[in-house]
Amino acid sequence: MPKQLRLNAFDMNCVGHIQHGMWRHPRDQSRRYTDIDYWMDLARTLERGLFDGIFLADILGVYDVYRGDGDTSIRESVQIPVNDPLLLVPAMAAVTKHLGFGVTCNLTYEAPYTFARRMSTLDHLTRGRIGWNIVTGYLDSAARGMGDQKMIGHDDRYDMADEYMEIVYRLWEGSWQDDAVRNGRDAGPYADPAKLHRVRYEGTRYKVDALHLSEPSPQRTPVLYQAGASTRGRRFAAKHAECVFLAEQSKRALAATVADIRAQAAGAGRDAAEVLMFQLATVVVGRTEKEARDKLEDYRRCSSVEGALAHFSASLGIDLGGYALDEPIRHVKTDANNSFMDAITRRTESTWTRRRIMDQVVLGSRWQPTVGSAEQVADALIEIMESTGIDGFNLSRTVMPECVEDFVDLVVPVLQERGRYKSGYETGTLREKLYGAGRARLPACHPAAAVRVESR
Amino acid sequence: MPKQLRLNAFDMNCVGHIQHGMWRHPRDQSRRYTDIDYWMDLARTLERGLFDGIFLADILGVYDVYRGDGDTSIRESVQIPVNDPLLLVPAMAAVTKHLGFGVTCNLTYEAPYTFARRMSTLDHLTRGRIGWNIVTGYLDSAARGMGDQKMIGHDDRYDMADEYMEIVYRLWEGSWQDDAVRNGRDAGPYADPAKLHRVRYEGTRYKVDALHLSEPSPQRTPVLYQAGASTRGRRFAAKHAECVFLAEQSKRALAATVADIRAQAAGAGRDAAEVLMFQLATVVVGRTEKEARDKLEDYRRCSSVEGALAHFSASLGIDLGGYALDEPIRHVKTDANNSFMDAITRRTESTWTRRRIMDQVVLGSRWQPTVGSAEQVADALIEIMESTGIDGFNLSRTVMPECVEDFVDLVVPVLQERGRYKSGYETGTLREKLYGAGRARLPACHPAAAVRVESR
Repeated sequence: MPKQLRLNAFDMNCVGHIQHGMWRHPRDQSRRYTDIDYWMDLARTLERGLFDGIFLADILGVYDVYRGDGDTSIRESVQIPVNDPLLLVPAMAAVTKHLGFGVTCNLTYEAPYTFARRMSTLDHLTRGRIGWNIVTGYLDSAARGMGDQKMIGHDDRYDMADEYMEIVYRLWEGSWQDDAVRNGRDAGPYADPAKLHRVRYEGTRYKVDALHLSEPSPQRTPVLYQAGASTRGRRFAAKHAECVFLAEQSKRALAATVADIRAQAAGAGRDAAEVLMFQLATVVVGRTEKEARDKLEDYRRCSSVEGALAHFSASLGIDLGGYALDEPIRHVKTDANNSFMDAITRRTESTWTRRRIMDQVVLGSRWQPTVGSAEQVADALIEIMESTGIDGFNLSRTVMPECVEDFVDLVVPVLQERGRYKSGYETGTLREKLYGAGRARLPACHPAAAVRVESR
Repeated sequence: MPKQLRLNAFDMNCVGHIQHGMWRHPRDQSRRYTDIDYWMDLARTLERGLFDGIFLADILGVYDVYRGDGDTSIRESVQIPVNDPLLLVPAMAAVTKHLGFGVTCNLTYEAPYTFARRMSTLDHLTRGRIGWNIVTGYLDSAARGMGDQKMIGHDDRYDMADEYMEIVYRLWEGSWQDDAVRNGRDAGPYADPAKLHRVRYEGTRYKVDALHLSEPSPQRTPVLYQAGASTRGRRFAAKHAECVFLAEQSKRALAATVADIRAQAAGAGRDAAEVLMFQLATVVVGRTEKEARDKLEDYRRCSSVEGALAHFSASLGIDLGGYALDEPIRHVKTDANNSFMDAITRRTESTWTRRRIMDQVVLGSRWQPTVGSAEQVADALIEIMESTGIDGFNLSRTVMPECVEDFVDLVVPVLQERGRYKSGYETGTLREKLYGAGRARLPACHPAAAVRVESR
């Protein structure tokens, strides 16, 4: 069987996500993000399209680098307002059976003790369908919200994250043995205290001495996602991530990043092929190529270049509004953040100008959409997968929920005809759907396995 | 119209809540607490019974005072394992239209910036049905989970809570003006930056400088619950709480506490009658008194005295296992915690012995159940309300969900016949259901109103 293409919807609990200005389109319903029915309907549509999951981004703070304030972000709704993503999961889980949930949570501002319980709770309520996109945040405006002046340094955040992972692994994998819960069988106890273990950890930043509050959930550790393409971010991904979210601008760069992370994963003793790679894709599809091109032009009228500049300025840490149109942009902060923006950050050189950036903006972002008939789109996606070694795509939203419905109704059947897409879901947890039956828990080669009580 | 009786179901995202051992009953389904369908079914039943809300308790940490460890709590499942309560709300909201949600969240371990967003998100998703039971926690075992050695002092926690409230009020009420969101009308912005205001606060413990991340939700500030009956807790309730949860052991004590908190609220410039008082009630009802008595005996066979002692020891901060059966219990730590346990804590004197405590335990707790036919139970509840000035009850769970179904099917119709219970829900948010149409937001006399931008 040829390699199957995996799909996540890429979304966020807010009005404007990546394709800035699309919310102004007359048919767009993104402004219904506060409406629980909007999300439940979306979940049903994604499950109808056999999507592996919905990947929910998140940000704390406001993009306030452009023109020195957050005004453009507020006017264009560039990820502000933004609501908590975790609270969407139970509502979407209530109306689906198979859809996975990859949720971005910033570990910098969550204590491991309470965060571990939150994820265990979701793993229980979703019957093993929860994933966690590990981020450490990068905005000074978020740091100020938390009482600090500035965000701590990029690489320091990853060191802190390694420590954090060690603790949550112990809570998830090492506090309750598999046979700890007796559930009152034979008039016995609910749980056997001898099979519960206090997690004691004292590191540079964290100190914990506690039992995990939740009993073992189907997956214990949520499926781990990572989205940072910086040097340090890749090293972190190679060690911890099961799924990596990439946003490279060319197939060549994508293939190189995929190969690099896989090589590092193998070097860390992991099965490199099992580190699944998802590339960002923005799709505009029609029943014919002409219909797709017309749709692109229609959408494009809403594209917000100002929104794109506000977003990109924050990602770069450079106020693009402070440059004349053709002035070279010199002060490039590299390795500045751990979001998927890294991919372009690293490539931004002094030959760039604001005009060049603005010219690249289509549908409110610098990522170029894949446009065409269902057959053209399907073939383009398959070709990217084949030529780069990725496993699938995170589909960016344009006009919602129309773009998802179009993909499900038009592209999915062609992918299926091509033998590249499942005709039904596998049973089991999200991790089993990704790796096969019997794989609900992390494999022995993953660092989390080392803290299991049974294996001590 | 005679005073209407209000009802909350009192529950927790765990196996064993207050009536210890009930989970062992053959018909009890509490062990399904990890099953999302269990909670959705419960929500539907409560809405069928026109309950005002479900009040969800929470605890961080393990009750490990009794016999010097947590083993009894683990065996009897005394609030361990315990999952996050907030994540139940979206699932229950998905299948209901009117049921309110009062959720316990410990402010000690949540940053105000991220917590405020979490509650705003829930207020949006529930269309204005969220409430917050403000607690500060009291367990050293939770403090150790968070990297501290001991819980900070009781009154210090309330001072910290006052500061915390000031910040979240500013985020909820003072960051976005009512007319800030233009939603793109007339091709304009999503929101007007001139109508957003950064919250700048620097106190003893907290420092914040940020915009609130969420746009105004139906209620802005969630309906505020408080459950501490200590001297300092009452002062806090009189200042902040809209609903107070009491667990007094006698009608005399209950009437005195109600009068005291109302007097303090009036002294703080608030409308005392609008501070709504809910008393804990445990009901066992049958179609006849005999059926109820038989049911009590049936349930009682599962009562866990050990579970009750483990729970009570933690509440007192005294290891009751360290006393001989008839030895007077002398070292009473008063004002020790801010939970509803305060009511008994303050009254525990040296004439108490372990035997006396154990003799009082019925259905796994020291609270005496109200037992009888539907008419007897209804009349007893009405009489308590009339004689003490309370507004309603938080109904403790026994055998689940049978006890809720019994109450809905048997007691609710009698309360309605007596003219003491609504025959349908009012429209609007939870706060409007409690106080009337047009009252979605906190009134001008509440301290939160002082930080509104419009009123500055």
